[in-house]
Amino acid sequence: MVKKTRHEELSKLRAQIRDVTLEIIANAHKRMELSERIGTIKGNLNIEIEDERVEQEIRRSVTEFSHKRGIDPAFAGRLLNILLMESVRLQQIQQKKPRYTTLENTHLSVFMKAKELESSGKKIIHLEVGEPDFPPPRSLKKALIESYKKKQYHYTDSRGLLKLRQAIAKKVGNGTVDNEVIVTSGGRFAIFSAMLALLKQGEEVISIDPSWPAYREFVDFAGGKIKILHTTLEERWAPDIRQLEAMIGHHTKVIILNYPNNPTGKVLDEKDITRIISLAKDNGLYVISDEVYSDYVFRGFTSLTRYKYDKSIVVSSFSKSCAMTGFRVGYGIAEKEIIDKMARVQAIALTSVAEPMQHAALSAIDYNPAGNVKLIKERLDLISEKLCNMSLDFITPEGAMYVYPRLRGLIQTDAELVKTLLKLGVAVAPGSGFGENYKQFIRISACQPKKLLEQGLEVIKSILFVH
Amino acid sequence: MVKKTRHEELSKLRAQIRDVTLEIIANAHKRMELSERIGTIKGNLNIEIEDERVEQEIRRSVTEFSHKRGIDPAFAGRLLNILLMESVRLQQIQQKKPRYTTLENTHLSVFMKAKELESSGKKIIHLEVGEPDFPPPRSLKKALIESYKKKQYHYTDSRGLLKLRQAIAKKVGNGTVDNEVIVTSGGRFAIFSAMLALLKQGEEVISIDPSWPAYREFVDFAGGKIKILHTTLEERWAPDIRQLEAMIGHHTKVIILNYPNNPTGKVLDEKDITRIISLAKDNGLYVISDEVYSDYVFRGFTSLTRYKYDKSIVVSSFSKSCAMTGFRVGYGIAEKEIIDKMARVQAIALTSVAEPMQHAALSAIDYNPAGNVKLIKERLDLISEKLCNMSLDFITPEGAMYVYPRLRGLIQTDAELVKTLLKLGVAVAPGSGFGENYKQFIRISACQPKKLLEQGLEVIKSILFVH
Repeated sequence: MVKKTRHEELSKLRAQIRDVTLEIIANAHKRMELSERIGTIKGNLNIEIEDERVEQEIRRSVTEFSHKRGIDPAFAGRLLNILLMESVRLQQIQQKKPRYTTLENTHLSVFMKAKELESSGKKIIHLEVGEPDFPPPRSLKKALIESYKKKQYHYTDSRGLLKLRQAIAKKVGNGTVDNEVIVTSGGRFAIFSAMLALLKQGEEVISIDPSWPAYREFVDFAGGKIKILHTTLEERWAPDIRQLEAMIGHHTKVIILNYPNNPTGKVLDEKDITRIISLAKDNGLYVISDEVYSDYVFRGFTSLTRYKYDKSIVVSSFSKSCAMTGFRVGYGIAEKEIIDKMARVQAIALTSVAEPMQHAALSAIDYNPAGNVKLIKERLDLISEKLCNMSLDFITPEGAMYVYPRLRGLIQTDAELVKTLLKLGVAVAPGSGFGENYKQFIRISACQPKKLLEQGLEVIKSILFVH
Repeated sequence: MVKKTRHEELSKLRAQIRDVTLEIIANAHKRMELSERIGTIKGNLNIEIEDERVEQEIRRSVTEFSHKRGIDPAFAGRLLNILLMESVRLQQIQQKKPRYTTLENTHLSVFMKAKELESSGKKIIHLEVGEPDFPPPRSLKKALIESYKKKQYHYTDSRGLLKLRQAIAKKVGNGTVDNEVIVTSGGRFAIFSAMLALLKQGEEVISIDPSWPAYREFVDFAGGKIKILHTTLEERWAPDIRQLEAMIGHHTKVIILNYPNNPTGKVLDEKDITRIISLAKDNGLYVISDEVYSDYVFRGFTSLTRYKYDKSIVVSSFSKSCAMTGFRVGYGIAEKEIIDKMARVQAIALTSVAEPMQHAALSAIDYNPAGNVKLIKERLDLISEKLCNMSLDFITPEGAMYVYPRLRGLIQTDAELVKTLLKLGVAVAPGSGFGENYKQFIRISACQPKKLLEQGLEVIKSILFVH
């Protein structure tokens, strides 16, 4: 009897769920139509598709509404984001705009163009990419031969070889143990897998611009929404922590940090890291700290691993420190539960990192990058001096491998300068590839010998200031 | 004046969009509550969370409704799937059920357990995984050394080295050119990237069970919904094409094929491929053809590349044919536009495949796997003979590296047999890891020497039939 009643109730609930479903679909359809009409007007008025102010207004309405109706504000905020992203997507298609505007003009797109020019016989000075020009550790040769001899070319644990994880844990220190380490296909995949593992549709990630364009792409892929905290040269690229605090909402999930910073060379003050972690703690946020440039640091730098924050994911790699870009080995450090989730993503996407590459990385674990660091520092000094002579504004890099000056003189937008320079055989990265607010900047990489750097900078000078 | 009117209209539309948004959120909240109540009743009645019949009913209502209201049925179907998936997720959390039930008991989980047992000193005969036990091509040794000497350890084109793409295009034939090829981190990443590149949230993928469990995971990751076409041993694992046709809806996007099949060893008849492609054409569907076992084939086999279908993605790899699993090099063949989309996913996730591994693959491009194929065939014959002597039912493999018998005798469920066998030092793959309908099956892999195969099969016999 009770069972029968339950079955009846089930039927009733199912009918209700059907009716609600139809209402949602009807409203979603209506919303799409409204969104299309707004898109048309925007197109005619030539207004930007995304409008922060309008978004804030509707967000306030939603928060108020969910409060009044007893709806979980995190749920409502997430759903709003999904609807907003769908509207933007629709209006982009309507206006025939590419979905990923930033991708059109980044260090990578310039690199591709430069490679094309080279293959047609042109000589190019590469100041656009961060791929070290010095050789990787000598140990790699033996490691590659041994991996063949010892038949080390099978599937491994999706977290990576135990020996390598142990070695990384030891190197990282601060009490790290092997099951808090995952070996990934480059530092890139560590962040990619963390985003896919942590983000639910519509949740937000706060990123500090200017920044590596990949962060936006990861969030987009995971169905999340990126929120940008802008920093300025005037403030020496220091993030405004109060502004950061104001950006955190119910549906915020992750803050991503990248110090030493690409492209600015900024290293964050310890007191700022402490305040960010404290904010993260108070709001239950994850902090992804991309520390791939942590060996290239010319002032005090504190890794996030030192803070023992249980929701932090610290990412590093062999690419920059050991000049091993093409081996594609990086790693993530986090609590075991987070590592296991990231490992699941890696297992699904690619099973495990190629075993010979893991042995190569293992052979390089004790490699001392001091010589490379000294070399990069000298080159950065040279670049800084030359840019100073051109009276361009920038901060002297405190770390990483780049200088990020603001343009002045005859050409003040990155796209135009990048194009003109390419014709003259010099490739530089457009500043806006690191955030749309930075069209007045370019990034110059220190991954070329001094002589080429000098030549490249001479060409830049001749373009900006005709004497 | 006109401009002012437009701005006013914009404000009006925005107010409307706000109201619709709040209604959607309120209804979504209501739907979640109803779903929770249904979940509770299901838990009490011990009913499965997913119910195909109920889903069909609501789907019919939605189709009817969208027809009546002039709503795009593909849009409505997609949205319905998103809502249904959210309900299932919620009820799973509520009933504390794991999200990925299939993962609990697969060939990989058995492999992990077996590895653990081995590390504690136990001897295990590995009949559970498809990792060839014979050596990879000798050319690899030289290729690895050369890649170091020639400094071939940098980022490459995200589609892979041009030379390797050209070589693969030539090997594949059928007029394939290099920009129709992408080199990926294993065949796995080729399918992963295709799913992420092609699927929109809520779109459907049809997969034919029993099948490699990864397909479900890929679709899940891409936010899609998997639809399973079941095949049976009685029908010699041939898919019912009329049933397949009936499964195609407005929001269906991809059909995934895997022949020679893992786990059954089935090779699809040419007339069936023709009919499937014709269905795909009529409905504008993509066809992903996983052909990683195409070298291991013992009857006529036609690759999908032969059919010149512009929405096909053919996937293969060096892992099985050349015993190069741990090098993680596979590839995808498709129209340039599809390849470019897949390359974008690979660029975001991992930049490019490790360059030394690409050179290793290039050195193996002309490797003749005939010896390996002969070996696997002999072993499959041996396994078949032994299973035949136990009177177990199965089809004689027409390809791939496995036999997939139905259990009888004392133990008729895979989980129980797998557990019992592991204790006795034999690892086999549970049949239900390839689809929940197949709990009466196990998969036996031919990747061990004959002697070990014989020993393992003896143990299986002794468990199933005590004399």
